[in-house]
Amino acid sequence: MSTAPLRIGIVGLGTVGTGVVKILENHGGLIAARTGRRIEIGAVSARDKTKARGVDLTRYRWADDPLSLVQDQKIDAVVELAGGADGIAGQLVRACLKAGKPVVTANKALLARHGFELAQLAETQKAPLLYEAAVAGGIPIIKALREGLAANDIRALYGILNGTCNYILTEMRETGKDFGVVLKAAQTLGYAEADPSFDIDGIDAAHKLCLLSALAFGHRPDFEHLPVTGIRHVSAKDIAFAGELGYRIKLLGIARRVDGRIMQRVEPCLVPADKEIAGVEGVFNAVFAETDFADDSLFIGRGAGEGPAASAVVSDLVDLARGHNLPVFGLPAAQLAVPEWIDDGAVVSEYYARMVVLDKPGVLADISAILRDHSISVESLLQRGRDPGKPVSIVMTTHPARHADMMGAAQALASLKSLSQKPCVLRIETF
Amino acid sequence: MSTAPLRIGIVGLGTVGTGVVKILENHGGLIAARTGRRIEIGAVSARDKTKARGVDLTRYRWADDPLSLVQDQKIDAVVELAGGADGIAGQLVRACLKAGKPVVTANKALLARHGFELAQLAETQKAPLLYEAAVAGGIPIIKALREGLAANDIRALYGILNGTCNYILTEMRETGKDFGVVLKAAQTLGYAEADPSFDIDGIDAAHKLCLLSALAFGHRPDFEHLPVTGIRHVSAKDIAFAGELGYRIKLLGIARRVDGRIMQRVEPCLVPADKEIAGVEGVFNAVFAETDFADDSLFIGRGAGEGPAASAVVSDLVDLARGHNLPVFGLPAAQLAVPEWIDDGAVVSEYYARMVVLDKPGVLADISAILRDHSISVESLLQRGRDPGKPVSIVMTTHPARHADMMGAAQALASLKSLSQKPCVLRIETF
Repeated sequence: MSTAPLRIGIVGLGTVGTGVVKILENHGGLIAARTGRRIEIGAVSARDKTKARGVDLTRYRWADDPLSLVQDQKIDAVVELAGGADGIAGQLVRACLKAGKPVVTANKALLARHGFELAQLAETQKAPLLYEAAVAGGIPIIKALREGLAANDIRALYGILNGTCNYILTEMRETGKDFGVVLKAAQTLGYAEADPSFDIDGIDAAHKLCLLSALAFGHRPDFEHLPVTGIRHVSAKDIAFAGELGYRIKLLGIARRVDGRIMQRVEPCLVPADKEIAGVEGVFNAVFAETDFADDSLFIGRGAGEGPAASAVVSDLVDLARGHNLPVFGLPAAQLAVPEWIDDGAVVSEYYARMVVLDKPGVLADISAILRDHSISVESLLQRGRDPGKPVSIVMTTHPARHADMMGAAQALASLKSLSQKPCVLRIETF
Repeated sequence: MSTAPLRIGIVGLGTVGTGVVKILENHGGLIAARTGRRIEIGAVSARDKTKARGVDLTRYRWADDPLSLVQDQKIDAVVELAGGADGIAGQLVRACLKAGKPVVTANKALLARHGFELAQLAETQKAPLLYEAAVAGGIPIIKALREGLAANDIRALYGILNGTCNYILTEMRETGKDFGVVLKAAQTLGYAEADPSFDIDGIDAAHKLCLLSALAFGHRPDFEHLPVTGIRHVSAKDIAFAGELGYRIKLLGIARRVDGRIMQRVEPCLVPADKEIAGVEGVFNAVFAETDFADDSLFIGRGAGEGPAASAVVSDLVDLARGHNLPVFGLPAAQLAVPEWIDDGAVVSEYYARMVVLDKPGVLADISAILRDHSISVESLLQRGRDPGKPVSIVMTTHPARHADMMGAAQALASLKSLSQKPCVLRIETF
């Protein structure tokens, strides 16, 4: 194994990029001792050279054109932190792999969309492609799935994969404030972006789940077959009612294999409050894995932020320096399955539903009739307070029902005149 | 990298050994696909050839003398599952490493006692020595510390490292039954050994902590400088009082670095009930790591049992098959420090203490005087019920106090005539 320094080029100098610089500056000696080689910054590159970044970059060679690093003989590996599913990030990663140059990236969007093509390229060119930072930075979950649990058939994964959503849902529960208010506060605190839609609409979590599902089950990442629902429609009332019923609401990414077919989805659901994953609050992420020999494992840590994401990038660099090169999604690309997907409509779950109805005689009869017509059986129902002629909340939980039936019922309920808004219907996940 | 099969010899065919056979038989194809090589059982060996093990071993070559595997050209690596800090296990591991043959082991006792010597030997002979199964089988924690968190300075580790103790403490809390009763039930269920002292006296947890501390802080494993207290003296009353005060009692292994010096210890302590680690119940294990860049990470999973331990052994075999070879304790042996240890007497903590006293005037004055004389300041004190002339429990928590002072006070309290038994003094760990 080589003991020469591993010389890297960092492309993208936002939070994560500057974090990587800080770690290598702070722990250069420690990492060299652990790895047997120094990891040296050979060049840095970003769109704006003049921006203040809180770290002195003048000691590093600046590359105006990130693509120049591809053929640069003094750069052994490229760290891609520019981001985005296409554009310069995709161009750079493809060019590096084609040239046989190893790539470390945090780019979940790129891998979720083009992961299979990139895995093939990496394999043909024998160029490692590492992405620990793409999912839950503070948790070495890619490594856990691809190496630590490699002896197992993985059956299911449940993850809290987006810190922004988890922070918002936690704040809503603790303060009773509604979504919009808490989102605004989160933006002020830097826990949510100015344009928060990638996070709160579940896209970011879905990108991550895509990678975890591919790794766990050995299939091509497939963002197209991943139904996504965000958290905009979850109200503080839902969170409070869920609490009364013994649940917390979490945005979960779920991937599961049943009889050889695979299901993956991202949506807010009710989780029993006494489950450990329900206790994962604030900006923390968690991944729960159900395997045949190791049984249940749960990993909790920070998902994003400078330190955790940079720690994950550097752990990949350490693996690279140690000469490790594993199949991108845990299996040779040719063996990655094109999965048969489970029809979500046929999946049977319990549900929570909240309706805001006018408090007048006959409303419950209308609701009950619709439920009956869609084969939905009510497990519990509660109406809080009485206020004749005014809107009140009716909350119910159902016995196990087919998703298609429940969605049909929800649609029919929404068309009832006595409902003043669309019902909020959420799955109950009992693991 | 080689694509020839990795041929292993398994020595020791108890629960873990037969588990390894089952995994390789069940998932041989899957593991070969993930690894790029088959892992084949070249020979098996145990003390008793005739014992029924629930798995058909007739298809494998039986080695009467495990040491014959050392020079066996048809065996590429030896899996040592015989156990014990000395005896055949030590002999076999040393002989293999001397011969340059890789070893995978679950033997925490051996590594805790002789880890430094074995690490030197492994390094000189370039023979990998892997031991994921030695600590918390269902959690890839060795990998997480040595690889996943390799970019970080690790500051502290807290672990629930013994499933038997955690099961007993959980049962005591849930049923209110006392230690002896619950231990007996655990033995019947197979959760505790016929001779349970290794587990309940904390030795097993201490062996594991030894390895985690060495890995986390880069020092030689040192079982001699690891104070150990088991759980025999914890009563159901203590668990109930702790609950009233907002805590759970857990047997924790703690390793911490402060100003370059290291502290490691195993003892039952009070943990705030709302901390995630407090919610880790039954036979589950957990390791909490505090690092500078990745921040807080928590790993939860099954500690022992056939499946989880065997899963860990096979994950090591997968690493071996992939050609990985890392320094045994994360750093080259020559760089492993001989730590300067923190004097436990000087460590400042809050304490819980329960005394059984005769309910008569003046007792509290005696207790208070002793506490004053040892500079212990009481934070809260409660006496449950009144029963003049009869024994009643007094429970108190203290403000931060030096350990030496608290131990001095405990000793003085124990000599009071009005105390009918030794006080139970436990540290409160708030992380």
